[in-house]
Amino acid sequence: MICEILSVGTELLLGDILNTNSQYLNRRLADLGISVYFNTTVGDNPQRLKKALEIAFSRSDMVIATGGLGPTKDDLTKEVSAEFFGKKLILHEESLNRIKEFFEKRGLPLTEGNIKQAYIIEGSKVIPNDWGTAPGIIYENNGKILILLPGPPREMIPMFETYVVPYLLTLSSETIQSKVLRVCGLGESFMEERIKDLIENQTNPTIAPYAKEGEAILRITAKAKSKEEAEKLIEEVEKEIRKRLGDFIYGEGDITLEEVVVKLLIEKGITIAVAESCTGGMISARIVNVPGVSKVFKEGIIAYSNESKVKRLNISEETLKKYGAVSKECALEMARNVAMISGADIGLSSTGIAGPEGGTSDKPVGLVYLGLYMNGVENYKELKLSGDRNRIRLYTTINALDFLRRHILNL
Amino acid sequence: MICEILSVGTELLLGDILNTNSQYLNRRLADLGISVYFNTTVGDNPQRLKKALEIAFSRSDMVIATGGLGPTKDDLTKEVSAEFFGKKLILHEESLNRIKEFFEKRGLPLTEGNIKQAYIIEGSKVIPNDWGTAPGIIYENNGKILILLPGPPREMIPMFETYVVPYLLTLSSETIQSKVLRVCGLGESFMEERIKDLIENQTNPTIAPYAKEGEAILRITAKAKSKEEAEKLIEEVEKEIRKRLGDFIYGEGDITLEEVVVKLLIEKGITIAVAESCTGGMISARIVNVPGVSKVFKEGIIAYSNESKVKRLNISEETLKKYGAVSKECALEMARNVAMISGADIGLSSTGIAGPEGGTSDKPVGLVYLGLYMNGVENYKELKLSGDRNRIRLYTTINALDFLRRHILNL
Repeated sequence: MICEILSVGTELLLGDILNTNSQYLNRRLADLGISVYFNTTVGDNPQRLKKALEIAFSRSDMVIATGGLGPTKDDLTKEVSAEFFGKKLILHEESLNRIKEFFEKRGLPLTEGNIKQAYIIEGSKVIPNDWGTAPGIIYENNGKILILLPGPPREMIPMFETYVVPYLLTLSSETIQSKVLRVCGLGESFMEERIKDLIENQTNPTIAPYAKEGEAILRITAKAKSKEEAEKLIEEVEKEIRKRLGDFIYGEGDITLEEVVVKLLIEKGITIAVAESCTGGMISARIVNVPGVSKVFKEGIIAYSNESKVKRLNISEETLKKYGAVSKECALEMARNVAMISGADIGLSSTGIAGPEGGTSDKPVGLVYLGLYMNGVENYKELKLSGDRNRIRLYTTINALDFLRRHILNL
Repeated sequence: MICEILSVGTELLLGDILNTNSQYLNRRLADLGISVYFNTTVGDNPQRLKKALEIAFSRSDMVIATGGLGPTKDDLTKEVSAEFFGKKLILHEESLNRIKEFFEKRGLPLTEGNIKQAYIIEGSKVIPNDWGTAPGIIYENNGKILILLPGPPREMIPMFETYVVPYLLTLSSETIQSKVLRVCGLGESFMEERIKDLIENQTNPTIAPYAKEGEAILRITAKAKSKEEAEKLIEEVEKEIRKRLGDFIYGEGDITLEEVVVKLLIEKGITIAVAESCTGGMISARIVNVPGVSKVFKEGIIAYSNESKVKRLNISEETLKKYGAVSKECALEMARNVAMISGADIGLSSTGIAGPEGGTSDKPVGLVYLGLYMNGVENYKELKLSGDRNRIRLYTTINALDFLRRHILNL
C-alpha cells in the first residue's frame, strides 16, 4: 500500500502557514507500515488540484488530502475530487444536522457556505467532525482510496486518529498496535544512545524516536495477527526500554508533562506555589493548563526584578549582593519563601539569564538555577542551556516541571 | 516565472523532521513576486527523484531543490539532476579547498564523501557555502533553471538570502517590495469585511490577509520599475488600509504584540504589574518574552484560587461573595490592588472560566473579564470566548495585551 499526502491551500504556497499536517501524517503512516513516496502541496486552484490528483493516483494507491473543505468558494477539494472520479456531490443530512447544531450552540448564524460543507461525494463514507464543521470523506473507487480531511490540525488530527486509523487497519490482514512513551530530562542523543541497538535491531515491533521541544517521544509499533499478540510484542520491548530509561519516561500516550505533575500532586495531596524570575510565568502557566489544578496550585509569584524578589518574596539583600539573583542560593531562597508565604507544601523557583543581554563570563546567557523546597528539604538544579531567549525559557520550564515530577516521585 | 519547491529526503517522508524549508522558500518567493504552484517532497530514491524533476519542469520554469547534497551515498540530488539534464559532474577546485579548510579548522579528517560534495554539474554556477560543506548550484538549461541548496536550514537560509535572492532579482526587470501590517483585536472575518473591496480590486499592490492565533497579518506586495516606485504604491494602499483599520493595526513587519506593548511602556516610562487568574501566568510570560522588560515590569501575581486572591491581592470577601471571582468587579479589584501592592503605574488582570468544568448558564465556559487600573482610572473588558481551555487562555492573553496597548496609546 503506497500513500501520497496532498496538502491543499494557497496559504501554504504563500508560506503563510507551516505544513505540519504532512509531517504528522507521514509519521503516523510510517507507524502503520504504509509507505509514503511523495508529498505534494497545491493551491486552491481547481485545474492544478485536479492535475495533482491525477499524478498522485498514477503513482500511489491511496491519497490523503487535507484542506479545502471550508465554507468559502475557494474551498474546492471535494468538488474537484468528485469531478476527478466522475461523481456527484450529494447532501449528507446527518452532517448538515451536526453543522446546524454546531452553530446553534455558539449562537451564530448558519451561512450558505456551511451548508456546502455537508455535501459529500456519492458513494463515500463520512468521517464525522466532532471538532469543527467540515466532515471528512473516505472514498474507494476501483482499488484506489481517497481520504479527505479538513486542514486545521485541531480537527484533522483527532479525525485521523479516531476514524481514519481504524479504517486503515481494516485494509491489512494484520493488526497494528502502537504505544507512545514520553521521555523527559534526557537529551535526544543520550536517549538514542541508550536504546540504539534496540532501535536498529528491532523490526517488529519497531521503535521510532521523535524529538519535540525539550522532550522526546518513543513510538513502539507492532504488527500481529491479533490485538493481543501485538500488545504482547509491545510489552516485551517496552519492558526493555523502561529498564534502560527508567524514570526518564514520564508518561504514556497523549499525556503532557504538566498533567503528570498535577496528577501526582493531587494523588499525594501536595500543594504547590511557584516563584519565577526568567520564566516570567511560563511554569505556572503550564501547571494551570491542567483542569482541576485549583486543588493543588496555591499561587504563583513572578518576581522578575530584584525589587520584587525582595518585596514580594523576602529574598535577603545579602543573598542578592553576595551571590546575585542568578545563583543557587537565590533559587533556594525563592523556593523556600514562596512555600512559606503561600502556605504551600512545595515551593518551586526559577532564576536565570535568558539573554540576549545580561550574560558575563562567570554567568553566561543560558545559566539557570531551579530551586525546590519541601518540609525543610532543599534541592536545586543548575542548567546550562543554549539557544535564544525563548528556547532558554522554554527549556527552563520543562526542566522545572521534570525536576518537580522527580521530587514527588521519590517521596 | 513559475517556481516549484522540491524537498529531497527520506527523513521528511518518515515524518522525522518538519519541512520548514518549503515554508521559508514559499514566503520569500512570494515576496519576490515569483509564483509557486506546487511543492513536492520526495525521498532519497534516484528513480522517484528523477520522476519528480520531470514533473516539476513540465509545469514550472524553475525548480529549487533542497537536501540530498550531503556526503553519504544516500545523497543523490546532484547526481540525479546531472543525469536528468544529460550532463556530467565535474570537480570544483574552489569548493574542494573550502571543504578542506572547513575540516582543517575543526581538526576533523576529510572523508571521501566530503570530496564528493565538491563536484558540480558542468556549466553551472556555484553558490558558496560559508555555513557548512556542500556548495549550492544554479544551473540554467534551455530557459529552465535548477537551483540546488543543502537541506539544513542554517545553511540553506543564508545561502538563499546571500546568493540566490540577488540572482533571482536579475531575472526580472521589475523590483518587488512588500510590507506586513499586523492586526489585533478584530476578528479575521471582520477585518476582511472592512477591506474586502481593496483585497478584491487591487492587483498591484496585492493585499493578502492571513489569520494567526487571535491575530491577523496583511501583506502588501507591489511590483514596479524601481524600489521607490514600489514603495510609493505600497504607501498609498497602506494609507487606505490604515484609514479603515485604525489602531487595530498594532505593528509592522516581524514585531510581536508584546514587543509593541513593552516598547510603548518603556517610551512612556510606565511600569506595570499583572494579576492573573485563568491565564495562570501566560500574560506575564508573554511580556517577559521581551528583552529589557525589567525596566517596566514590576511583578506578576498568579492568584488562581480564591484564597490567593484574598491573601495575596486583598480582594474583599464581599466582592467574591456578591459577584464571584469571575466578574468585572473582581477583575477591577485585582487590577487596582496589584498596582497598589507592587507600586506599579498600571495594574492588569484576568479572571475567567477556561473550562472544561466550572461553567454555569449565567457564567458559561469562555466568559472572561480583563481589568485595568491606572491613576485612579478603571477599565474592564468582557470577553465571550469559545474553544477548549488552551484556546480560551491564549485568546484571553492576546486580548489582555491588546487591551493594555490601546490603553497606553490613548494616554
